[in-house]
Amino acid sequence: MEENKTKKAVVLLSGGLDSATVLARAIHNGYEVCAISFHYGQRHAVELERAKELAKTMGAVEHRIIDIDLASIGGSALTSDIAVPKNALEDNSGEIPITYVPARNTIFLSYALAVAEVLGSNAIFIGVNVLDYSGYPDCRPEYIEAFEHMANLATRAGVEATNKSERLKIHTPLIHLTKAEIIIEGTKLGVDYSKTISCYDPSDDGLACGSCDSCLLRKKGFEDAGLPDPTQYAPSKQ
Amino acid sequence: MEENKTKKAVVLLSGGLDSATVLARAIHNGYEVCAISFHYGQRHAVELERAKELAKTMGAVEHRIIDIDLASIGGSALTSDIAVPKNALEDNSGEIPITYVPARNTIFLSYALAVAEVLGSNAIFIGVNVLDYSGYPDCRPEYIEAFEHMANLATRAGVEATNKSERLKIHTPLIHLTKAEIIIEGTKLGVDYSKTISCYDPSDDGLACGSCDSCLLRKKGFEDAGLPDPTQYAPSKQ
Repeated sequence: MEENKTKKAVVLLSGGLDSATVLARAIHNGYEVCAISFHYGQRHAVELERAKELAKTMGAVEHRIIDIDLASIGGSALTSDIAVPKNALEDNSGEIPITYVPARNTIFLSYALAVAEVLGSNAIFIGVNVLDYSGYPDCRPEYIEAFEHMANLATRAGVEATNKSERLKIHTPLIHLTKAEIIIEGTKLGVDYSKTISCYDPSDDGLACGSCDSCLLRKKGFEDAGLPDPTQYAPSKQ
Repeated sequence: MEENKTKKAVVLLSGGLDSATVLARAIHNGYEVCAISFHYGQRHAVELERAKELAKTMGAVEHRIIDIDLASIGGSALTSDIAVPKNALEDNSGEIPITYVPARNTIFLSYALAVAEVLGSNAIFIGVNVLDYSGYPDCRPEYIEAFEHMANLATRAGVEATNKSERLKIHTPLIHLTKAEIIIEGTKLGVDYSKTISCYDPSDDGLACGSCDSCLLRKKGFEDAGLPDPTQYAPSKQ
């Protein structure tokens, strides 16, 4: 592990359960972590507050919040006025959920790539996951592989890499895990999930609604893992 | 050509000679064009003013300026305080120029992809060119092909495309042209190059310096094309 101590990684940190687990994994693997979060016209700022706190308490050496205007592009319930669906878990039948944000992971990974290149890092960590969100095309392994291939052709570091270990790698430690497996993994790594937020529609004081898709998946994850759910849900919405 | 009349394209428009030529080509080919430009911490705003004017006068149906904070990522003479090299054309020996912006085309194309998806467009036009700027890794055909492949795995439209013609295509009409050939092409298409700006270091009133890399390449392009250079250069710097 010692040889990894000076390796740098860029970790995409949303403030949610998945990305907090990824941050714990990167730090556990000996990386010096620059966490990055995006302010992209989310309806609520609570997830950025959680991201800041997680980066600080979990030991990221740096946290950058990049302000991007994805809202002006439109096209999704998360950044526009389309209603967030409630009390109905999206099925895995192949339909793309209406909460999909156009090209979101591509934009986020592109910024991560820029930061990685400036820092001299060849490791980007992202908490994408195929099982719970199979409707998002940009969460699939084939997409991640294609981004990684493109990234190594895009940058000075990729072009100058003389062997495979120097090439940029997109690490997706959660990609094949269920929500329950993610929670078990993160619990082993010491993640305090009460500090994370997964809710699409939190209350004004930053509590999870308990009834949106993301809350339902999270609740089920703790149940399936056989672990207590430390999430604070808003009383009126439970 | 009639069948293309309702096809939409997203065209990356910087306000420079190359992207103006690309815009002319896309419009000539019958696309309804949404031009996009980026405000990304450039030292000067003149190129955005030129982009606005070009979009309007050349017939783009829409022009979006997306404000992104690439300057906070750093790493280039174009967005930081590193001096812009003067009176020395960069050679094509494979060195990457110091004016390289980390992951810039990847970030720009990612935004173009998002806009294309929202508009229902499967055509993105970009004025990259391997001959004059061979030091930029993200201007090479293999990079563009890799981005296109990734993009078709990233988006709803790519996933749902049932045949090749529906897949997203990154159009690079200038990629193998010399600067002189680009100028000849654009002149045939009616581009008014006096309205474009290529300078890395323009004067306060928006005139080209005449001595930076980009100005020297542009001057040589008009010479090689045997066409008069309509560029207004700043008197004190000629």
